[in-house]
Amino acid sequence: MSRSRGRLLVGQSGGCTAVMNSSLVGVIQEALQHPEIDGVYGAVHGIEGVLKEELIDLTREPADNLQRLRYTPAAALGSGRYRLRPGDLELLLEVLKAHNIRYFLYIGGNDSADTTHRLAQAAVAANYELSAIAVPKTIDNDLPLTDHSPGYGSIARFIALAVRDAGRDTEAMRHREPVKIIEVMGRDAGWVAAAAALGKHEEADAPQLIYVPERPLVLERFLNDVEETYRRVGFAVAVVPETIRDENGQPLGQIPLSMGELADAFGHPRLAGAADFLCHEVTRQLGLRARWDKPGTIQRMSIACSSPVDLAEAYEVGRAAVRYALQRETDQMVTLQRDGGLEYHSTTGLVPLAEVANAEKKLPPEYIESSRPFVTDAFREYALPLIGAPLPEYGRLSGPVVPPRLHRRLPS
Amino acid sequence: MSRSRGRLLVGQSGGCTAVMNSSLVGVIQEALQHPEIDGVYGAVHGIEGVLKEELIDLTREPADNLQRLRYTPAAALGSGRYRLRPGDLELLLEVLKAHNIRYFLYIGGNDSADTTHRLAQAAVAANYELSAIAVPKTIDNDLPLTDHSPGYGSIARFIALAVRDAGRDTEAMRHREPVKIIEVMGRDAGWVAAAAALGKHEEADAPQLIYVPERPLVLERFLNDVEETYRRVGFAVAVVPETIRDENGQPLGQIPLSMGELADAFGHPRLAGAADFLCHEVTRQLGLRARWDKPGTIQRMSIACSSPVDLAEAYEVGRAAVRYALQRETDQMVTLQRDGGLEYHSTTGLVPLAEVANAEKKLPPEYIESSRPFVTDAFREYALPLIGAPLPEYGRLSGPVVPPRLHRRLPS
Repeated sequence: MSRSRGRLLVGQSGGCTAVMNSSLVGVIQEALQHPEIDGVYGAVHGIEGVLKEELIDLTREPADNLQRLRYTPAAALGSGRYRLRPGDLELLLEVLKAHNIRYFLYIGGNDSADTTHRLAQAAVAANYELSAIAVPKTIDNDLPLTDHSPGYGSIARFIALAVRDAGRDTEAMRHREPVKIIEVMGRDAGWVAAAAALGKHEEADAPQLIYVPERPLVLERFLNDVEETYRRVGFAVAVVPETIRDENGQPLGQIPLSMGELADAFGHPRLAGAADFLCHEVTRQLGLRARWDKPGTIQRMSIACSSPVDLAEAYEVGRAAVRYALQRETDQMVTLQRDGGLEYHSTTGLVPLAEVANAEKKLPPEYIESSRPFVTDAFREYALPLIGAPLPEYGRLSGPVVPPRLHRRLPS
Repeated sequence: MSRSRGRLLVGQSGGCTAVMNSSLVGVIQEALQHPEIDGVYGAVHGIEGVLKEELIDLTREPADNLQRLRYTPAAALGSGRYRLRPGDLELLLEVLKAHNIRYFLYIGGNDSADTTHRLAQAAVAANYELSAIAVPKTIDNDLPLTDHSPGYGSIARFIALAVRDAGRDTEAMRHREPVKIIEVMGRDAGWVAAAAALGKHEEADAPQLIYVPERPLVLERFLNDVEETYRRVGFAVAVVPETIRDENGQPLGQIPLSMGELADAFGHPRLAGAADFLCHEVTRQLGLRARWDKPGTIQRMSIACSSPVDLAEAYEVGRAAVRYALQRETDQMVTLQRDGGLEYHSTTGLVPLAEVANAEKKLPPEYIESSRPFVTDAFREYALPLIGAPLPEYGRLSGPVVPPRLHRRLPS
């Protein structure tokens, strides 16, 4: 390589995932193999740490610790949610110059891609030689121009497992509490909710209903769906995203402001969200007992339920980012491209950050059933390889009913 | 064996667990090995299925399906929560007689033990030869006179994993939202909350604080605990049970009735519970951003995070129940006894149901720290073997801080 030597700086940003430390370790281990890279620094809490000059030296991290970090969830450097303010880019360049940082790798989602893009452009404008590369990371899977994003396969596996398991609970208690509504992450795109379909083999497997933010949820139709499912299957498990809007674009399960203020006086300003609201409506309007589940942080953080494919790809995009940076690429995001073969396999690629920064990939229409609230087989074909090994198979009793000898009815 | 031949009837009852089908399969597979048992029936939705004469024949269940069921969560027969009414015992005996059922095995917790006890006594009073045996099952671990209960080891493993993982999220975002409160199952006994300690190795590992129902939560002291932890560790993760009472015995996070009625008008009668309430107080009184997690049904239902020890023991208590029944034991519950050896090993035993039915095993004082909200090493020694293999080790970055060259402060 002919480029001038300099240091590499890596940061982590945005909501944490189970696999974003795998990308970090990929960056560190690859960087340490290249003598052109004159030291590896980490930014504490992402770009905010660069601004504050809070950096740590990653060059002498013990190998066994890196190996453990590769399978440790969340952001070992600390993550952040800082939005650049006027003047920040100049301050950032000052820090990079002061430490002779020539490679900047930023592990994050859409906002981080935008930050990386603006920093890359500022470096060009300032005539400061810098390779700024974004390393994709988001459970939302909404980064465009990549087949999928590291982080998604693992939350997809968690949700597929959790919804299938929670469904067994509802099935076992269907005579008492036949409806369950599971609220999963996802505000604008339905990728996470859709993943609930990946553990389903037959109609008794949960979920029977999947609602995605790409379609409005009309309450009356929702109640019809639940009731019809209950009559046909004997119980109903529905998955909803944390933000789902009605036909007027209003998010469900949000308290009116006046009520919020009132509730605040009692120390309870918040609502539990869409699933809580829908459960209440199911009980009030259909007379069916309903329960909601909201897995919370753990859904994007579980190593025990992570996807081995996702972990491996997260590591590879980190390594690839270093190699691209050494090739003088800048203002780009690493992508994952699916090979066309029969067996699933992916390779890395690059896409200009200008095309990433303000775009958002939603579930395409061909992944959403038009006739019922569910996802299509095309979605399953897309997503199944990403969750790694198939889920373990479950059983159901097939035993024949014993003919009654007393023909009695329980007094209710 | 000299006893008259007859059928075996098995049922499942109470809140579902990840391993209660293992006990069912243990019962079925053991029973099929004994020619004295003239067929194996299952009761649909527990004792309610017996009353309604809703039974299924388990005798010809395919072996591969039984193998899958052994690792399928929840209750394949359907579970129930039926409390016996006057006259029910006579109706139950009629059904047992009509089908010549001479062995009744009931997989469940305290209430199911009581039902089994009353049925056993009614059979004696009616001079009907019956072996009625309770098979322990509860995630609450509150059944007395057994070292522990099948179901507990698996929820303990899930909680240990989930709290450790969720803690990494808080640690990574500690500069923005430094407090997390995780609400876990447990209304009267703190066994599940205590299990959160099992993934902790150092003070930065979550949780720093564990509250159990055996001790009142004094809000002022709780806020002091959170603030002190935040100042010392940089963030704070607290675990609370779903029911936790203040010094006046009032459950936290319950809305006053008048407010409930008011809220109902807006379609939101329910609160998210203790963790929601406590988060609000942390933010209001300490000025620290806080988030709550409430894993819900999945915590007691996850096969992916289950304990292999728990799965194996659940199977063995099912098998043992059949053997005890064949030995003419009745009105007893199967127990697990811990051997004294260096390596963890358990054997099964029996305890009279009269001693089980109205007792409840809480966390003993020696498992609760007196000086701070946490559990003792004695608890960890008790519980660690129950969750199976040790949790995978995680890493943290050890890298030295890079000396700043600009010494700048970010304008906030």
